[in-house]
Amino acid sequence: MTEHALQDPPTQVRPTLRVGVLGAGTVGTQVIRLLLEQADDFAARSGARLEITGVAVRDLAAPRDPAVPRELLTDDATAVATGNDLVIELIGGIEPARSLILAALSAGASVITGNKALIAAHGPELYAAAAAAGSDFYYEAAVAGAIPVVYALRESMAGDRVTSVLGIVNGTTNYILDEMSTKGLSFEAALATAQELGYAEADPTADVDGLDAAAKAAILASLAFHTRVGIDDVQVEGIRDVTAEDIREARASGCEIKLLAIAQRREDDHASGISVRVHPALVPVEHPLASVHGAFNAVLIEAEAAGPLMFYGQGAGGAPTASAVLSDVVAAASHRVDGGQAPRESFYADLPVLGPEAAVTRYQIQLRVDDQPGSLAAVAGVVADNGVSIDSVRQSAYVGANDAIVTIVTHPAAVFHLEGAVAGLRALERVDDVVSVRRVEGL
Amino acid sequence: MTEHALQDPPTQVRPTLRVGVLGAGTVGTQVIRLLLEQADDFAARSGARLEITGVAVRDLAAPRDPAVPRELLTDDATAVATGNDLVIELIGGIEPARSLILAALSAGASVITGNKALIAAHGPELYAAAAAAGSDFYYEAAVAGAIPVVYALRESMAGDRVTSVLGIVNGTTNYILDEMSTKGLSFEAALATAQELGYAEADPTADVDGLDAAAKAAILASLAFHTRVGIDDVQVEGIRDVTAEDIREARASGCEIKLLAIAQRREDDHASGISVRVHPALVPVEHPLASVHGAFNAVLIEAEAAGPLMFYGQGAGGAPTASAVLSDVVAAASHRVDGGQAPRESFYADLPVLGPEAAVTRYQIQLRVDDQPGSLAAVAGVVADNGVSIDSVRQSAYVGANDAIVTIVTHPAAVFHLEGAVAGLRALERVDDVVSVRRVEGL
Repeated sequence: MTEHALQDPPTQVRPTLRVGVLGAGTVGTQVIRLLLEQADDFAARSGARLEITGVAVRDLAAPRDPAVPRELLTDDATAVATGNDLVIELIGGIEPARSLILAALSAGASVITGNKALIAAHGPELYAAAAAAGSDFYYEAAVAGAIPVVYALRESMAGDRVTSVLGIVNGTTNYILDEMSTKGLSFEAALATAQELGYAEADPTADVDGLDAAAKAAILASLAFHTRVGIDDVQVEGIRDVTAEDIREARASGCEIKLLAIAQRREDDHASGISVRVHPALVPVEHPLASVHGAFNAVLIEAEAAGPLMFYGQGAGGAPTASAVLSDVVAAASHRVDGGQAPRESFYADLPVLGPEAAVTRYQIQLRVDDQPGSLAAVAGVVADNGVSIDSVRQSAYVGANDAIVTIVTHPAAVFHLEGAVAGLRALERVDDVVSVRRVEGL
Repeated sequence: MTEHALQDPPTQVRPTLRVGVLGAGTVGTQVIRLLLEQADDFAARSGARLEITGVAVRDLAAPRDPAVPRELLTDDATAVATGNDLVIELIGGIEPARSLILAALSAGASVITGNKALIAAHGPELYAAAAAAGSDFYYEAAVAGAIPVVYALRESMAGDRVTSVLGIVNGTTNYILDEMSTKGLSFEAALATAQELGYAEADPTADVDGLDAAAKAAILASLAFHTRVGIDDVQVEGIRDVTAEDIREARASGCEIKLLAIAQRREDDHASGISVRVHPALVPVEHPLASVHGAFNAVLIEAEAAGPLMFYGQGAGGAPTASAVLSDVVAAASHRVDGGQAPRESFYADLPVLGPEAAVTRYQIQLRVDDQPGSLAAVAGVVADNGVSIDSVRQSAYVGANDAIVTIVTHPAAVFHLEGAVAGLRALERVDDVVSVRRVEGL
């Protein structure tokens, strides 16, 4: 033995864990590349050598990134799911992903997935299967790409009470709204651009109709409120009906329009439970969410003790999503080596999921009124009489000979109060028209 | 048994864990309040009833917030440290905190602390004691209050390679710089205001000289780079020398001055290792760090796969810091119930900590030059000849008859290149004066 060897630390004998990957798309390719390139780092951090034993793909002959060794490819997904210590599911969709994950868990594997649709539809079943098998079930990559928001809600907020979660969690719609805002494009034109650039699918439904964001909202709400929330509990409105004119008017009043995933706890005289929804809303330009552009995501968590917390980062893409997947892989591997387990499903609070009428938000109401003394006061009076408190009123533009536009921004108001106020405004003689009623978040 | 009782889930028998609290200051008071008020939530989340058995304080007779039950108070800190399953240390400073934590760990307790100074000075000793005892050692509250950045670096980045961490982690200096910027105050006047309002201590050294931020920088760097970094490894410059004039000029060039904690990995032709430092720097107003005000903190992490991630929230205060402490309490309690352990110290990468000469940053150089044709080109030529690449040059103001001010912003440059460039500029005949050389981050 040389002197040099004597000074070295003893070579650590690490166990080897078998890793199977289901799917070799954009994210899978990056996961495989990083696991192979940084094998020593992963061994040092997790305590085990991570050996990829198989990568299940549908089409063995399809062209592949050279980062994926061809000899690892197989079309036997069941063998990959059931023959490994850790199984990474990156196929997406409900089936066969669900059956493969259940097979992996019952074969004793820990499962890491980024499959938001599956979790929002079958989360409790998957959690239960993991608990029954004594395995880990992880899904950091399911929401907001590289941003560790699942971790934050599941563990960092475990000592606090979350009151609301507000997020931009869909990059495709965020890109489309950005294009509409900066270039004045129509929704259709911006969607076409997004499709050309590969940011939107040929069938853009999941993104533009808010379904992808709704799955993420369900996951965020479940974690934030220790309550089972499925995708069917989420009130969803996408961005198809947002017009270039809407965005111009939003900007004129100092706002951007963003598609928000919202999970809110209510505990007041009128309602007790949670409201979970996805819809476009005005966001004041000074608010940090207004400057989240393109494929970036941001999630704002409010908790009783912590106050506001914001997390910002890349919400999609191969490498950023792979980073999230791999943090889960290290955690699951560490548990195999040192004991311990992933957090189990937490739904002890079991709060009622409230209907659309329980949403409490601010509103911007635009009216066309007779431009005569007292109009503004009359309008404000009607709003207040209906139990809606006013943040600001301004008479912003003159249209025609005797008309003015009045823009009211309210404090947070319940739907039925708002509806009462709008009905009251319509009934006012000096109100010619209620031009628009829009939700405002982030004030 | 009534029908109603039959429908209830069976009462779960949970173990009880004994919790001791060392210190009942601002944070300790909130920790105690929340543990008592939300006992059922903590039981559901951690799997154990958490029973506070004692709160060690120096002065039993001192006035206390009513949230702290007087019957829990004791002046026997050693008994609290050694007689519990979980010990929460919130005394601060090196001793007796260090001895009490070591006593708690060797008595088999898991320890949760927010003591940045202690960790930056004695982290490895505390980690080793926890490992030897098979106990957990947690310190989320040591950096950036409610923001779960310790968690993020220790666990969420475990599958990625961090390249840099940039943070505003000291609320006192951030408040002082804000006051100087918005009100044009001198450092001394802004400090006096901060002291009057209780935002700065009577002896403000730890904050204004950057020592508090340096302890946090050492912790962030250790976690980010899997390398032991102590407070003595950090190059520190505080904000005492920042003048109202500096801030006016920063604003004139579209920047704010912020005190930054920086941990940077270098792996290039000139250096291999990490640079860890605290100093004031210009930050362009569009950069998210520029709009972090008052007691808020923000940490920007760059990683190879994830790209940029930003975390933002309250960096201090009783309740926000308590939120961080309590997330650690839940994690440590869960481990007692279900097995598993906190991450151990990770220093396998053992990267060299580089000296001040290894800092790579952008610079803003302001020169007073002769206002004649070719000055700008000559100046730019000297900078480029010294290996410093230029981002922008502008001739911004005329002073005196034949003089102009030229402002150069460089691309990231090594210290010795920058020094060469500045020496070259001083030697240029048409340069009358090098007015200022300032670091710029976040471009």
